[in-house]
Amino acid sequence: MELLKQRIQKDGEVRAGNILKVDSFLNHRMDITLFKEMGREFYEYFGDRGVTKILTIEASGIGIACIAALYFDVPVVYAKKHPTKNIAGDVYSVEVTSFTHGRSYNVIVSKRFLSEDDNVLIIDDFLANGCAARGLADIVTMAGGRVAGVGIAIEKGFQAGGENLRAHGLDVKSLAIVESMEDGRIVFRD
Amino acid sequence: MELLKQRIQKDGEVRAGNILKVDSFLNHRMDITLFKEMGREFYEYFGDRGVTKILTIEASGIGIACIAALYFDVPVVYAKKHPTKNIAGDVYSVEVTSFTHGRSYNVIVSKRFLSEDDNVLIIDDFLANGCAARGLADIVTMAGGRVAGVGIAIEKGFQAGGENLRAHGLDVKSLAIVESMEDGRIVFRD
Repeated sequence: MELLKQRIQKDGEVRAGNILKVDSFLNHRMDITLFKEMGREFYEYFGDRGVTKILTIEASGIGIACIAALYFDVPVVYAKKHPTKNIAGDVYSVEVTSFTHGRSYNVIVSKRFLSEDDNVLIIDDFLANGCAARGLADIVTMAGGRVAGVGIAIEKGFQAGGENLRAHGLDVKSLAIVESMEDGRIVFRD
Repeated sequence: MELLKQRIQKDGEVRAGNILKVDSFLNHRMDITLFKEMGREFYEYFGDRGVTKILTIEASGIGIACIAALYFDVPVVYAKKHPTKNIAGDVYSVEVTSFTHGRSYNVIVSKRFLSEDDNVLIIDDFLANGCAARGLADIVTMAGGRVAGVGIAIEKGFQAGGENLRAHGLDVKSLAIVESMEDGRIVFRD
């Protein structure tokens, strides 16, 4: 998606440790006009899959997922991050390790909000090692549902997440794939 | 807002400790069709105030704020919750005590995303003791900006938050004000 790539080149900042900071438009300040174009792109790609629900994860996936949901006309469920293993209640839970924060947490979704009738589009802002998306896909499977696909704003193509998800048969659509960002220079995959 | 009140009556669950559980449509599973109507109501009330930015707080405010932003045609900034007092970087920070979770945390916003030119609409899903909304208003003031108003989905009218915010001169628009919920029966303020 050309508009997103241009925006990343213009406003993205490469930080030590392969961090790409895009908080001025994606995950702290959110450019809703850009999100509409992103939602339209996701719909163009996944619109004919019979999606019944969008699943994302707090906090930075929520805005993108909600705007995308306007096109799909479906509800959004956001998974919650839970620091401990002691989780009460009737929830699906998987353990996930965050690339950015270098720590593990549990991702939980109430059993009431996913079912075997669901065909779920997973949406998130970043795909790096793929643990979050993989965890969300596992939760959909636990519920007996199907994963329609995975929609990602920015994939770090130099990390293994995208490759792993695709190897597991998931249809991953990333709007921008960063091939490398050495010396602060961001190069996209064609 | 009649539609929201009906939905709360239909799907809201009153729990011990004055908890109103609305996670089937507001803050875990999100009904985007309802959010559009809520956004339209906020715009009807605040649309002529020259709002330049919507400010909310992770995670449950983000969806409502993003959909509302479509009507206002402005970006959304979401404040982040930070567990410790050791906060690095160039941020505005206030301490807030959560009613639901009974613990304190710091609310932070990057200084880059609020300025003295901003006229900010604060949006959140719940208003109980008012600490979160008050904290967000304080952050706007720290940045030298103005608060155009506070848009809330559900206000607990039997707690002091709404009264306190209004006493401080803030224009608070709550789409549904719960007057009481004794014995599990939800009564709204007219």
